[in-house]
Amino acid sequence: MANDLDGTRVALLIAPAGTEEPEFTEPRKALEAAGATVTVVGLDTDDAHAVNHDLEPAGTYAVDRAVAGVAPEDFDGLVVPGGTVGADKLRAEDDVVRLVKAFGDDDAKVLAAICHGPWTLAESGVAEGRRLTSYPSLRTDLRNAGATWVDEEVVVDGNLITSRKPDDLPAFTSALVDALAARKS
Amino acid sequence: MANDLDGTRVALLIAPAGTEEPEFTEPRKALEAAGATVTVVGLDTDDAHAVNHDLEPAGTYAVDRAVAGVAPEDFDGLVVPGGTVGADKLRAEDDVVRLVKAFGDDDAKVLAAICHGPWTLAESGVAEGRRLTSYPSLRTDLRNAGATWVDEEVVVDGNLITSRKPDDLPAFTSALVDALAARKS
Repeated sequence: MANDLDGTRVALLIAPAGTEEPEFTEPRKALEAAGATVTVVGLDTDDAHAVNHDLEPAGTYAVDRAVAGVAPEDFDGLVVPGGTVGADKLRAEDDVVRLVKAFGDDDAKVLAAICHGPWTLAESGVAEGRRLTSYPSLRTDLRNAGATWVDEEVVVDGNLITSRKPDDLPAFTSALVDALAARKS
Repeated sequence: MANDLDGTRVALLIAPAGTEEPEFTEPRKALEAAGATVTVVGLDTDDAHAVNHDLEPAGTYAVDRAVAGVAPEDFDGLVVPGGTVGADKLRAEDDVVRLVKAFGDDDAKVLAAICHGPWTLAESGVAEGRRLTSYPSLRTDLRNAGATWVDEEVVVDGNLITSRKPDDLPAFTSALVDALAARKS
């Protein structure tokens, strides 16, 4: 598995505050273990403050690039973590929505969102016509955005990968690495 | 103004954690100052932990009744505060959605929601066909749920009162008290 993703570039979003820590750290770990280069993309380049269980302060993480300067051409995949507050902040930023839409609409790229991260799929229009999952509290928003919402640990629909919660991370990261590896072969 | 609402009974929702403190305390203060009886309704009867600015721990509040046992007939009005995490927890509870729908569908009652509280209007179907506002990050969810979303400090559409954020609380609480007083006259 290691080195499968040599040369693969993935953008990993983080909010200034409120991103669920393992939904940020576990995808990064899995991607880097497989050989991918992960770039942390924030709303700005200030350090980001993650949480556990939505409200408990967790780790502080450096941000590599601000989203306003990120071009979809620079990356093969985009990962959107949850955390209720973090995902709410991400969806409210036009440049995040632009990036999510660019990845969602491009079959040659991989877009992965977990937990409350799929709010960005509703916001960007990417949810429309897709089969997907999310944290259950979002299901009405995603159905109203035109998605077919299902309750499964990971859902792969074309270039879109979604999961429900931190417990789904092993399945989510595995599907993410597989999808990025498949587009190289 | 005091005693205008003598005999008026209002249910004020609070989540176990993550309700935005002033969106809970300010409506309660305004309603009680006007003579109303306010009942704090939680998901259970454990103390609730509020926040400021979504993530900063704030006050702890006693809960009078669990939502599962609350009948719409017992109250004249229902208030749904925000806080991103708190509102997300409220919308995920079937008994909250049932209560919001019962108040929204009954022209003789008053339903008021602020900030992220209007997610419950999307969840319950009450948003459909209504003119309303909310914290801006929810506007796509509310439009997709059939609402006409506008950017105003307070919007009154029939029995539904909505506002955007803590700064709107003076306008929100004033509209709430006026609407409850009007239904007595």
